[in-house]
Amino acid sequence: MDTKLHTEQGRSTLLSHIELELQKQVSRLDAPRTKPFHEMLSYHMGWSGEGAGPEAAGKRIRPLLLLLSCLASSGAAGKDETWQSALPAAAAVELVHNFSLVHDDIQDNSNRRRGRPTTWVKWGMPMAINVGDALFVMSNQAIIDLKENYPAEIVVRAAEILHNTCLELTRGQFLDMSYEERSDLTVDDYWPMVAGKTAALLSACCHIGALLGRADDSGQEAYRSFGHYLGLAFQVQDDILGIWGDEALTGKSAASDLIERKNSLPVLAGLSANGRFAARWKQGPIGHNEVQEVARLLASEAGYETATDAARQMTDLALMSLREADPQGDAGEALFELADRLLKRNQ
Amino acid sequence: MDTKLHTEQGRSTLLSHIELELQKQVSRLDAPRTKPFHEMLSYHMGWSGEGAGPEAAGKRIRPLLLLLSCLASSGAAGKDETWQSALPAAAAVELVHNFSLVHDDIQDNSNRRRGRPTTWVKWGMPMAINVGDALFVMSNQAIIDLKENYPAEIVVRAAEILHNTCLELTRGQFLDMSYEERSDLTVDDYWPMVAGKTAALLSACCHIGALLGRADDSGQEAYRSFGHYLGLAFQVQDDILGIWGDEALTGKSAASDLIERKNSLPVLAGLSANGRFAARWKQGPIGHNEVQEVARLLASEAGYETATDAARQMTDLALMSLREADPQGDAGEALFELADRLLKRNQ
Repeated sequence: MDTKLHTEQGRSTLLSHIELELQKQVSRLDAPRTKPFHEMLSYHMGWSGEGAGPEAAGKRIRPLLLLLSCLASSGAAGKDETWQSALPAAAAVELVHNFSLVHDDIQDNSNRRRGRPTTWVKWGMPMAINVGDALFVMSNQAIIDLKENYPAEIVVRAAEILHNTCLELTRGQFLDMSYEERSDLTVDDYWPMVAGKTAALLSACCHIGALLGRADDSGQEAYRSFGHYLGLAFQVQDDILGIWGDEALTGKSAASDLIERKNSLPVLAGLSANGRFAARWKQGPIGHNEVQEVARLLASEAGYETATDAARQMTDLALMSLREADPQGDAGEALFELADRLLKRNQ
Repeated sequence: MDTKLHTEQGRSTLLSHIELELQKQVSRLDAPRTKPFHEMLSYHMGWSGEGAGPEAAGKRIRPLLLLLSCLASSGAAGKDETWQSALPAAAAVELVHNFSLVHDDIQDNSNRRRGRPTTWVKWGMPMAINVGDALFVMSNQAIIDLKENYPAEIVVRAAEILHNTCLELTRGQFLDMSYEERSDLTVDDYWPMVAGKTAALLSACCHIGALLGRADDSGQEAYRSFGHYLGLAFQVQDDILGIWGDEALTGKSAASDLIERKNSLPVLAGLSANGRFAARWKQGPIGHNEVQEVARLLASEAGYETATDAARQMTDLALMSLREADPQGDAGEALFELADRLLKRNQ
């Protein structure tokens, strides 16, 4: 790699390779009889249809994390071979992420994703379930493609990590959906849900990256732990922004999570406090006209403080784990910068 | 194994081991926070809830095929070790089958499955999507569990066969759904759909079984081919029964496939003939009062003949492949008998 990985140009080199690998994986459906099916996946991935482009594709954080973890743990930032061999695994984690988004959008009845109509809105719910399933299958196929570059034992281990992570995703999704009908939730119910929904996959990215970079067991554990806390910190911060965020920065209307009744950390902290916020929350839906007032109420009853404390704590744990992983070279620098970028996006 | 595999008792020994392995795989969700989630999977698998039992569980044909193929190709019908080592793969194919049923029932808006309310009817569509996803994840975890008993190269190959099969399933599902809106279908559109929807997984069962029985490449190919044609023959026969079957035998009202507008082989043959049946079909839904008349019309315009010819041809190809596979011992006999049972169920 000619360019430094912590520069914009270095990142864009990785990103273009990730995109090519993703397109290669998804091209398995690019055959005469399944052209329209391929088109649906291609649309969701942000490559085609109205509004296609980088914004529709998303940031590809997960494959970036995987490749950087691989490079930084192999201590071979100069060797092109290492990170290119890991590309199928990078594609696999992004495909898992996208499979879960397609099914999520159906489950949440969401009309828009990354500024465009969701897959189920465009092609109907039955087709969209199948689009998600196909993306999921392709993630499995991608991880097995590692066999071209790695011994079978490593491939089996990578697949095992990925599958365990996917079960965590379904667990998190179950908890999230089952919480919708409950009004007895507390802060304790929060962590198992976000561990599954957000942290598991980020953790798997770093873990598989370190495995492919041939880190030893304790090294892999440090990377895994970094990804886990990074995911938790990221989610808590997202929760804070969803209630008190700057609309101009977040791109969604402030306090919208309150209107959508999302069981975020601030809300669960407010419910645990069992004060005026909890009483109002249990009365039912919050309208646009009162949302600012309810957000202020929640802030005054520990919701904001609990969440910012937790975000700080998880961020500290993430950075401590990353220092323990001791990532090498340009990729190491890039990992610290990526963590910084993810964890300070409201500043 | 003490009992002959082609006897009822021999089959029931295999079936009870299959059931235990399936329960072990699904127990991954049997934890305090996910008890209700585990219960949903357990219900769909036929183990719990109203109407639980063998009928609700289904016949477990796929894992049986896998274990018998393994035993018959290893030539070691006496060695307990071989087929027990293959149990995680047997569970994997049954989990794939059940994942596809759960999603199918949502996509087809089906209220009942194996005599009971479907998962989405009981717990709603969003939860049911997640139940299907979890069964799918568990099939991936099960196939990786082979690592306890087989070298990593074999595990990777088994996983590869399974994943390629799952992509075929999504292809078949796509074609099936996309056909719903079309009136220009011909017999040529039939085979790619059923190859994906039915034959791919039966083919994978025999293929993976032979792989785990350590058959050589040409042996594996013969088993794969047997499963493929068995699946096609089975599906065509199912199509025939769905229109002209004996209600008492099939358990569903005769000609119901015509009312449900299923794009079965007889119907596509009738559309290809482009006669009076095709004209009537294109006019729209067929009511209960005229269904017998339309079934007779279809029979008089090559629908029945084309389908029975195809069923006979696919059955011949299946049995030819099985003879080429040259399955050994009790398990070999059991495979021939299983094929017989599957392909002659209308007699």
